[in-house]
Amino acid sequence: MLPANEKWFSEVHKDAGSAWSLAVETRLAHETTDYQTIEIYKTRDWGNLMVIDGFVMLTTRDNFLYHEMLTHPALFSHPAPKRVLIIGGGDCGTLSEVLKHRSVEQCTQVEIDEMVTRLAEKHFPELCERNDDPRAELLFDDGLAHIKQLDPGSMDLIIVDSTDPIGPAEGLFGPGFVVDCYRALADGGILVQQSESPLLHKDLIAGIRENMTKAGFTDIKTLGFPQPCYPSGWWSATQARKNATIEAAEPQRFVASGIQTRYFNPDVHRGALATQL
Amino acid sequence: MLPANEKWFSEVHKDAGSAWSLAVETRLAHETTDYQTIEIYKTRDWGNLMVIDGFVMLTTRDNFLYHEMLTHPALFSHPAPKRVLIIGGGDCGTLSEVLKHRSVEQCTQVEIDEMVTRLAEKHFPELCERNDDPRAELLFDDGLAHIKQLDPGSMDLIIVDSTDPIGPAEGLFGPGFVVDCYRALADGGILVQQSESPLLHKDLIAGIRENMTKAGFTDIKTLGFPQPCYPSGWWSATQARKNATIEAAEPQRFVASGIQTRYFNPDVHRGALATQL
Repeated sequence: MLPANEKWFSEVHKDAGSAWSLAVETRLAHETTDYQTIEIYKTRDWGNLMVIDGFVMLTTRDNFLYHEMLTHPALFSHPAPKRVLIIGGGDCGTLSEVLKHRSVEQCTQVEIDEMVTRLAEKHFPELCERNDDPRAELLFDDGLAHIKQLDPGSMDLIIVDSTDPIGPAEGLFGPGFVVDCYRALADGGILVQQSESPLLHKDLIAGIRENMTKAGFTDIKTLGFPQPCYPSGWWSATQARKNATIEAAEPQRFVASGIQTRYFNPDVHRGALATQL
Repeated sequence: MLPANEKWFSEVHKDAGSAWSLAVETRLAHETTDYQTIEIYKTRDWGNLMVIDGFVMLTTRDNFLYHEMLTHPALFSHPAPKRVLIIGGGDCGTLSEVLKHRSVEQCTQVEIDEMVTRLAEKHFPELCERNDDPRAELLFDDGLAHIKQLDPGSMDLIIVDSTDPIGPAEGLFGPGFVVDCYRALADGGILVQQSESPLLHKDLIAGIRENMTKAGFTDIKTLGFPQPCYPSGWWSATQARKNATIEAAEPQRFVASGIQTRYFNPDVHRGALATQL
């Protein structure tokens, strides 16, 4: 039993037999769109909390871990990423980290539900500070359709910053989408897919990796990192590179970039690449 | 609200405004000793669960992370650890990992509460399989007193595998104990202290590091790692070395050791050493 002197938001991880709860003070927003139900809570100790269809998406306090690890490892593994595509990522935290890289000439975010971004602008403004960057393009469209109409070889990085593989994001975990990503990537390009927990979702990770192998990617790595607000607190991103291997960031390049991080650095990158499955 | 169709064990992290819950089937043991109250539950999906005074100590499913990261980094940073002392650690998981190292000639575990070990033998037998190793010595005594009567310079490693810094373990986080550890360690010796969450307990970690500096240790590192069953799911061990620096494991030595791990490896070690505070 959780103590009744606090209000709690709880996410139950049904298949894992566990649950995570945050003490909340008020609900700041509650919107039902064509795609999903989005809630924003003010928590007691974690800043604001975004919930979609009952699942925790992010909190102010700990989202830096996920957003740094979904982006910087891939951006530093690629020699000069210029054209970046984000599928999902409506809270704009991934976009914000990508735009820290001076090599990036264009970063397009394709989020299906505009309301996610409108609520992030209001309740997670620190993640949206770079939305006016001239290199940023915010589209509100279906990522599955968007990827099909891209020119072959036109992208250096594709980052799939999706919700769980149920509901609107289900297709983003299917083999057809991965084939479309492969086609859209240039040689040396990298696909990054959020891939759930290395402790709880081994089968899902194996399926993602199998799709990547079948699509033709030559090197595949699953990078683990802590992420308190997601089931088990241990999360992962799986990367696949087209016709090249995935290497950890060069320390000199990281220092020269001037990019400030709270979790990512070249040694953490190397450790994440060595995650055992 | 957690769904009423399951029985839940919940640990509320009061200062963090969060809680973690596991679906449990039955309570297997409930013992009150001179020191604390110990419970063992059978969970639905995490194997067995040990709880002391309401705080989660370990589960069958995820304890490998903590036990590997409290031991192997220090054992591989030391050139040839022979004499190892564990303070606390009554579940014997730390002892079990230490004894995987062939260089170790003696490993003494000083647990204040014998009941912890008796319950571990019954409900976590896989952690106790090496308790009959002739190099293992299990004492049930006060770690604070034990350390004072050691010969100066007689230990290569001291691993403090304690409960939280309240109750019986409070003294293990005090400056006097760290001074006693420094005295008991040989040159090049390493003190390892479980040091809570890098996200939630920054002040505690700073205090541990300050005690180590004041005691005379010349290199201090805080290693982060995922640990689902502890608050935030992101945990740490802080190491301090006497008159030497702390370096990551050499890959050749790790391979030659033949030690099988599920999380630790030399690159993960290097990543953990680069944890930003």
